[in-house]
Amino acid sequence: MTLSRDPEVLLDAAAGGDRAALARLLSMIEAGGEMARQVGRLAHVRGGDGYTVGLTGAPGSGKSTLTDRLIGEIRSRGEEVAVLAIDPSSPFTGGAILGDRVRMQGRSTDPGVFIRSMATRGHLGGLSLATPTAVRVLDAVGRPWVLIETVGVGQVEVEIAANADTTVVVVNPRWGDAVQANKAGLMEIADIFVINKADRPGAEDTRRDLDLMLELSDLGSGRWRPPIISTVASTGEGSAELWAGIGEHRRHLETSGDLTERRSRRISGEIIEIMHRLIEEEVGDLTATTDFVAVQADVVERRLDPWAAAEKLLARR
Amino acid sequence: MTLSRDPEVLLDAAAGGDRAALARLLSMIEAGGEMARQVGRLAHVRGGDGYTVGLTGAPGSGKSTLTDRLIGEIRSRGEEVAVLAIDPSSPFTGGAILGDRVRMQGRSTDPGVFIRSMATRGHLGGLSLATPTAVRVLDAVGRPWVLIETVGVGQVEVEIAANADTTVVVVNPRWGDAVQANKAGLMEIADIFVINKADRPGAEDTRRDLDLMLELSDLGSGRWRPPIISTVASTGEGSAELWAGIGEHRRHLETSGDLTERRSRRISGEIIEIMHRLIEEEVGDLTATTDFVAVQADVVERRLDPWAAAEKLLARR
Repeated sequence: MTLSRDPEVLLDAAAGGDRAALARLLSMIEAGGEMARQVGRLAHVRGGDGYTVGLTGAPGSGKSTLTDRLIGEIRSRGEEVAVLAIDPSSPFTGGAILGDRVRMQGRSTDPGVFIRSMATRGHLGGLSLATPTAVRVLDAVGRPWVLIETVGVGQVEVEIAANADTTVVVVNPRWGDAVQANKAGLMEIADIFVINKADRPGAEDTRRDLDLMLELSDLGSGRWRPPIISTVASTGEGSAELWAGIGEHRRHLETSGDLTERRSRRISGEIIEIMHRLIEEEVGDLTATTDFVAVQADVVERRLDPWAAAEKLLARR
Repeated sequence: MTLSRDPEVLLDAAAGGDRAALARLLSMIEAGGEMARQVGRLAHVRGGDGYTVGLTGAPGSGKSTLTDRLIGEIRSRGEEVAVLAIDPSSPFTGGAILGDRVRMQGRSTDPGVFIRSMATRGHLGGLSLATPTAVRVLDAVGRPWVLIETVGVGQVEVEIAANADTTVVVVNPRWGDAVQANKAGLMEIADIFVINKADRPGAEDTRRDLDLMLELSDLGSGRWRPPIISTVASTGEGSAELWAGIGEHRRHLETSGDLTERRSRRISGEIIEIMHRLIEEEVGDLTATTDFVAVQADVVERRLDPWAAAEKLLARR
């Protein structure tokens, strides 16, 4: 039986547990364009009760192993989970399994776990819109937990990870790691700090550094103070504590009203981003018109200045 | 006597040789905003016969000393020149004299030379619009030569230098310098290569590397082949050859019609850039409306999806 290309049909199938339908929906989002938009629109209105957890940190910090441990925690409670592994720097795509992902593939036979890698396919900044759309689909088809793991600590990765309900920042016991985290803007986005590989020397120093930086940042009264959790993902040490920390943060967001506020802010950012895209398309369309050529000639001949030209073209929309 | 703030009055004064008026016009451009636009509009329509030469290359390659030598070549022919030293990475501004500029200040008592540093003042990407506007003013007030020196080899610097009529790329005789130039995208933008500090070991190797890379790049028949000129800016060796090379490239552009095409392309880029800015302002305005708040709430409550919301807001412009 061939798989449908109708987003509505695919959403129904995915909601019923059809993994191929879900994979196709995510591929459609990754490919971008009008179809990706349509999938996002339908999924948004369907909605869901999903909760997203973002994990970010330097390459090699052990995010993937930690993600795998979180999957274990969630599954041991009988709940379902989806994982999006986001790599803005990689041109590879199509749900291809990245090196680190392989370890998680022991999970691939478990119908309660869905793992997907997403990469850019060249369109710059594409993931900043594709990721929330993918989350929306996973939410709409009934995944109660969505883990977003970003591969690096570049601006895009940090933004993507920060777009979760709970953001976990992973560092290692290395001299200066805490300081690096601070520089990369991770202090601002962290809801929970994890010192992974905490059995290595220097873990206590890293904790002290993080503590100090948290002291120095003005949290204000009543605000959430990010806990610092030590883990050894390779042995599973600390995973239960991390899971408990995520639950605690979630309860804090829900009782304080911050969850609604956080999601509203995310929605605002997304609407603004979409407006920019739509407008960029308009500008692209305008430059292809004969009007543009005529106006450009007027500017070259100094009958018009570039600002007047831009205004004139925009007025013709 | 206090200096006017009226761009029209300032342009007249600057055209008559008033350096303070010219400096104020450039400060107005640097400050951005509506006044900068107005200065640019007026200057564009006035026009002029100015020719721009961009110089780019890694810090320490000797661009400033080379620029000083070019000033000498131009002045020895009795012509006037203006220099814009662009530093996108520096927050310093207001025509402040950068370290390297000091050397050129022997020129500051010469009324035929006008030197100005420009920096960003924080508004991201501001220099990509401010630089052509500044060139336009220098052109309109009658400077026949405008040299644009960029401080680094980042994307913005390269773009700015490439926005000249003739672009000079400066490298040094160092192992790998030619390869670095290639990586930074300098091969594509160079009209002339300068190997400065050519009295140092390795100059011939660098020339060979550049030659090879030019061979490999498909220039096409009839197209300009960038000459490779060796200089020792500190002694003045090769400056006459560089000046001759610039003259030759200029003649090539003028006789082939490429000058008009190049300037038209620059104008197109500028119009598109201005359209984007105007639109960003529109989006900024829209997000401040009560409409935005209402539409955002609709999306949060899932009565509307983010794409429909963006379209709805844009339709209200």
